[in-house]
Amino acid sequence: MKIAVLPGDGIGPEIVAQAVRVLEVLRTEGLKIEIEAAPLGGAAYDQYGAPYPEFTRKICRAADAVLLGAVGGPQYDTLDRPLRPERGLLGIRKDLGLFANLRPAVLFPELANGSTLKPEVISGLDIMIIRDLTGDIHFGEPRGMRTNDRGEREAFNTMIYTEPEIRRIAHVAFGIAMKRDKKLCSVDKANVLEVSEFWKEIFTDVAREYPQVQLSHMYVDNAAMQLVRNPKQFDVMVTTNLFGDILSDEASMLTGSIGMLASASLNESKKGLYEPSHGSAPDIAGKNVANPLATILSVAMMMRYTFNNIEAADRIENAVKKVLEKGFRTGDIFEPGMQKLSCSGMGNQVVAAL
Amino acid sequence: MKIAVLPGDGIGPEIVAQAVRVLEVLRTEGLKIEIEAAPLGGAAYDQYGAPYPEFTRKICRAADAVLLGAVGGPQYDTLDRPLRPERGLLGIRKDLGLFANLRPAVLFPELANGSTLKPEVISGLDIMIIRDLTGDIHFGEPRGMRTNDRGEREAFNTMIYTEPEIRRIAHVAFGIAMKRDKKLCSVDKANVLEVSEFWKEIFTDVAREYPQVQLSHMYVDNAAMQLVRNPKQFDVMVTTNLFGDILSDEASMLTGSIGMLASASLNESKKGLYEPSHGSAPDIAGKNVANPLATILSVAMMMRYTFNNIEAADRIENAVKKVLEKGFRTGDIFEPGMQKLSCSGMGNQVVAAL
Ligand SMILES: CC(C)[C@H](C(=O)O)[C@@H](O)C(=O)O
Ligand SMILES: CC(C)[C@H](C(=O)O)[C@@H](O)C(=O)O
Repeated sequence: MKIAVLPGDGIGPEIVAQAVRVLEVLRTEGLKIEIEAAPLGGAAYDQYGAPYPEFTRKICRAADAVLLGAVGGPQYDTLDRPLRPERGLLGIRKDLGLFANLRPAVLFPELANGSTLKPEVISGLDIMIIRDLTGDIHFGEPRGMRTNDRGEREAFNTMIYTEPEIRRIAHVAFGIAMKRDKKLCSVDKANVLEVSEFWKEIFTDVAREYPQVQLSHMYVDNAAMQLVRNPKQFDVMVTTNLFGDILSDEASMLTGSIGMLASASLNESKKGLYEPSHGSAPDIAGKNVANPLATILSVAMMMRYTFNNIEAADRIENAVKKVLEKGFRTGDIFEPGMQKLSCSGMGNQVVAAL
Repeated sequence: MKIAVLPGDGIGPEIVAQAVRVLEVLRTEGLKIEIEAAPLGGAAYDQYGAPYPEFTRKICRAADAVLLGAVGGPQYDTLDRPLRPERGLLGIRKDLGLFANLRPAVLFPELANGSTLKPEVISGLDIMIIRDLTGDIHFGEPRGMRTNDRGEREAFNTMIYTEPEIRRIAHVAFGIAMKRDKKLCSVDKANVLEVSEFWKEIFTDVAREYPQVQLSHMYVDNAAMQLVRNPKQFDVMVTTNLFGDILSDEASMLTGSIGMLASASLNESKKGLYEPSHGSAPDIAGKNVANPLATILSVAMMMRYTFNNIEAADRIENAVKKVLEKGFRTGDIFEPGMQKLSCSGMGNQVVAAL
């Protein structure tokens, strides 16, 4: 298991350090794990002048899986667009062909109070959002600024999907739906966009290969409402890059504990980049108070999806559950009566539970 | 006051009928109100073969304001794209230049229980979302399907904004912020899209003319989260057509009573189209159980924004408040202990309260 570790910016290094301890436990027990570290985002810009430099690219290409902390920070906001941390993220996604983003929005029963939604609305919440990550308006050409015929300045981007792009994400989505409740909701804006109409057409076609899966279609504005109104109606959702960006973040916030949510971004050969769903939280960086659990759970996803080591994945997830059951909490998920731990303190507990 | 009334589809005719009664009360008291009815959407297709036919266009163009019920229904889903009900909506918006969509998300204190969010998160919620309605990917060209160089089918749309389009919606947004808490949050995706970068640049420029307004910028994915996490942080939000479609629907659902939310779509000379934020609800159409209050509150917005008749606007809004205080409810906002009314029964109560 060749694993590239990219701590990134902000709280990235702290949370990744705890996740690496989990990998080390697995290694001690006999898993053949090789770790190589490299910078991404602002850290990479500081060191190499680019957010996804050749040094990092080489290590990531050679690896079977990548573990990322988070990228971004206010000190990089004024850089030229191609140098900004998020360009590193877009760069690695495209470079490794990480087209399938898996974003679970799962409520840990112990943390239900942290949600702004009523307990009955979210208890048992378990949604898997699948977002295409290498197509759409994020990468679409042409794009830019220009002056039009009327002499006005204008800016434009292109939303675009090819048939193969839609087919491959459809197969991932149906495949995951098959392993869950066999209910797949595809989200689009087909009442306005040709891209969405095409998306819907291809999904309807692919559906014939998965007769057991019940496919439904929903407009993105309605999906944004339904996630608030009755999120438990969803099992697996699948959508485009831009809509997925918005809906997966909305869904993760329903749980009230985004510090617990992992994500995977896979390519066609199951190579994957694994990262917490939360960001780099520059305001608390370096204080050893961040929640490392989403990053640790990202390692579990890595074991499950890239290495097909279900046992290791289950063990890590169970260790996290046990730690929560025991009442250990970092600041972001703390409630009176619980025991507040630092980032590394939480790492200790997970290692102990393992 | 020349008012075009477009009942539309589904529950449209029922709810509009109650709002027209409110207009009639105002007329009896001396306001010079002229009403002309015309079909839009599916109803227009049935009668004239087009969702925004010449007949309707003429009446709307001649009017000072338009009152719309809602459009759409399953029987129209298989029509060719240009004939579908939503094309009527896009058509009238473009034809009348209704670029500024005002979508209040306001919680009526009596209805707090209806929300899926905890009372403390939403009590006192009062957000005004301003959405550009005639630019962006809804209308952007080029758009369509084609076969690319690699022989693959692909579909594409264009997200585009010109400087004048951004400036005029910015002025509307700052103007409204000036009349409220002077806090304006502009939502974009400037870390990825050139369109957003341009949007942000123009907003920052226009901000100099409104030094009293505190302008902030937020990415759309974060905005979708923050609306769930802490919606009361927002006063006025402004964004593009596509993002506004998603966020305004999400925000309206936070209140749990979308049947109470009105909207306005204004052009440069304050001519406006007024409609409830909810849809045509085909499942309950014709049963006289729909909630007419959002449509009635749309008349209040019409008085306020097009006719600058603040007194009439306040009176209508107060009548609705009084009716709620008295415990009258339609089915969608019903709770045990309250008195359940039909659509027309609710109309009776509002007329009485007026
Ligand atoms: C930082 C940005 C490029 C990125 C995206 O929009 O894809 C982020 O929002 C995400 O969801 O990972
Ligand atoms: C029906 C559709 C064209 C429309 C839109 O996206 O503008 C609707 O969702 C709305 O928000 O009014």
